[in-house]
Amino acid sequence: MSLLTANSHSLSEEEIDEYSDGTVKLRNSNIELMDQDILYHLALGSESHDLQEMFGDVKFVCMGGTPKRMENFAHFIMDEIGYKLPAGTQLQDISAYSYRYSMYKVGPVLCVSHGMGTPSVSILMHEMIKLMFHAKCIDPIFIRIGTCGGIGVEGGTVIITEDALDGQLRNSHEFTILGETIHRPAKLDKKLARELKSLASADDPYDTIIGKTLCTNDFYEGQGRLDGAFCEFSETDKMNYLEKLRNNGVVNIEMESTIFAALTHHAGIKAAVVCVALLNRLNGDQVNAPKEVMHEWQQRPQILVSRYIRKVLAQHGQLKSLFGQQGSIKSPRRFKLVQQESQAHE
Amino acid sequence: MSLLTANSHSLSEEEIDEYSDGTVKLRNSNIELMDQDILYHLALGSESHDLQEMFGDVKFVCMGGTPKRMENFAHFIMDEIGYKLPAGTQLQDISAYSYRYSMYKVGPVLCVSHGMGTPSVSILMHEMIKLMFHAKCIDPIFIRIGTCGGIGVEGGTVIITEDALDGQLRNSHEFTILGETIHRPAKLDKKLARELKSLASADDPYDTIIGKTLCTNDFYEGQGRLDGAFCEFSETDKMNYLEKLRNNGVVNIEMESTIFAALTHHAGIKAAVVCVALLNRLNGDQVNAPKEVMHEWQQRPQILVSRYIRKVLAQHGQLKSLFGQQGSIKSPRRFKLVQQESQAHE
Repeated sequence: MSLLTANSHSLSEEEIDEYSDGTVKLRNSNIELMDQDILYHLALGSESHDLQEMFGDVKFVCMGGTPKRMENFAHFIMDEIGYKLPAGTQLQDISAYSYRYSMYKVGPVLCVSHGMGTPSVSILMHEMIKLMFHAKCIDPIFIRIGTCGGIGVEGGTVIITEDALDGQLRNSHEFTILGETIHRPAKLDKKLARELKSLASADDPYDTIIGKTLCTNDFYEGQGRLDGAFCEFSETDKMNYLEKLRNNGVVNIEMESTIFAALTHHAGIKAAVVCVALLNRLNGDQVNAPKEVMHEWQQRPQILVSRYIRKVLAQHGQLKSLFGQQGSIKSPRRFKLVQQESQAHE
Repeated sequence: MSLLTANSHSLSEEEIDEYSDGTVKLRNSNIELMDQDILYHLALGSESHDLQEMFGDVKFVCMGGTPKRMENFAHFIMDEIGYKLPAGTQLQDISAYSYRYSMYKVGPVLCVSHGMGTPSVSILMHEMIKLMFHAKCIDPIFIRIGTCGGIGVEGGTVIITEDALDGQLRNSHEFTILGETIHRPAKLDKKLARELKSLASADDPYDTIIGKTLCTNDFYEGQGRLDGAFCEFSETDKMNYLEKLRNNGVVNIEMESTIFAALTHHAGIKAAVVCVALLNRLNGDQVNAPKEVMHEWQQRPQILVSRYIRKVLAQHGQLKSLFGQQGSIKSPRRFKLVQQESQAHE
């Protein structure tokens, strides 16, 4: 039970975060003593499901706010890595019965929704880290794909988080455990951030930047918006605050990055946050871009992450093997014609 | 712009929370100066929709974590208050296009999902309070219908929150606004809590109690669970903490009550929190009750809230008028037979 002692922090991280084979080591020895570990909010259990069989091949865990966005990403990444489903099958929401998060698996890529705000992400992270442990996943990489408000950057800009800051601009997340307040560093993998940045193309009709991200517990007052149900500060106060953020290197504001960074770092899991700005907060509060524009913007972080996943799979010679799989559709044009013909014969 | 001054707190609450006709007054004069107020996470707008026509008759706003639970509650309360839909119609998720929250309207009752954790509730509360304002709703009552862990109470117990406490056992919620930390009282309506308690029946095969509720930002470490991805305290530490909670009058733990109480109180809206305990945390951490049992338990707060809604509607002579409406189904037995017959003729 040495992991439960107060001294566990003094061990070097390599010693406690990972086994030598790259699988995720839990900082909780209680789990292995349990009869079954129910991942309650994922609708999975360590004895009810063969988690290693189901998830042992997962290399990338991609997370985002809404079930819809992650379902879209699952279909997008399926095309991008050329993953083929067996005939007569379709993607299934693995966590549908939790009614809380949605989870789709596309070969080595797991696509999971995390809801809004740090507590919702916290619950999911605990269960995803335990899932990686039970499934004996090797060196999984976690990437959050989100939306945000930009600070001095235009709507549509892709922002990779360098450091995640809390409301007091600390590079940490505050936890209250047994009534005591502690901070854990909200560190992301700098090398991964640079690698993602290097995959931005000069041909992309938008900017991809790296900068600091402010993580708040509210969308309105917490982000200095004037348009919440309450507003007890002036527009001048707001602009002074946003300028202060900019002077501290903050380029965007969202609501999940500190907990995502703190828990992945604490688990020794490499992680990155890639968001698209939906507006420049220096110009306003309400998100006014047309639906089609917003939809296209939200694909941009997905495109960057997909380039990264393709690159890593290619490096390991796995992209070709995925592409080599037998698919159902030989000619998309003829497939469409058959569908139309079929619909006409009622 | 007097509401934006630092002195707004010194005004008496009656003066600023409500107009004399009972409609909700916003503590934000910016809203009325805006061209349109987009309730972004509800997929509604003050000029795109006739919010008064759509929501002006709302008397009760019931909220809970998952879209599924609130959809179930919508159908349940429809039966309970005898609300009839016009022929050929069904309930529609009003906020489906937000992909974030679900909202169902059953006459005077609005049923909305709020996700997990205080930030998710915070976003919804800002927009729901603004919705009440735009719709000119008269004296709306907000009730959260949730699930929780019990402290010294058995699974299945219904718990009405007397006071909502944060992780440091303060009866308030902490906000970070423009980088500064403030606290707002997490007060619920004591009279409403007592009224709800009075509607528990001696025939109910379970207890309904009033007590203090601890609101945390995490389900695992934040609630002293031993079964998260991390656990750096011992079982003795955990039990000492839970005992300390019990000695402070805490009977349950959940993740939404302080923000729900703080924002309704700040808006001058009467509110209550009614949860069912899914387990007694003094006996364990994992929720093990069979699905059918859990399902029945989750109906218990709904039953209590429905008794309250029926009572209020009856007092205002509105229950009869709802029941008097023309419905589609004259005989449920014959309706079922017709359905079965119809299915047989393929």
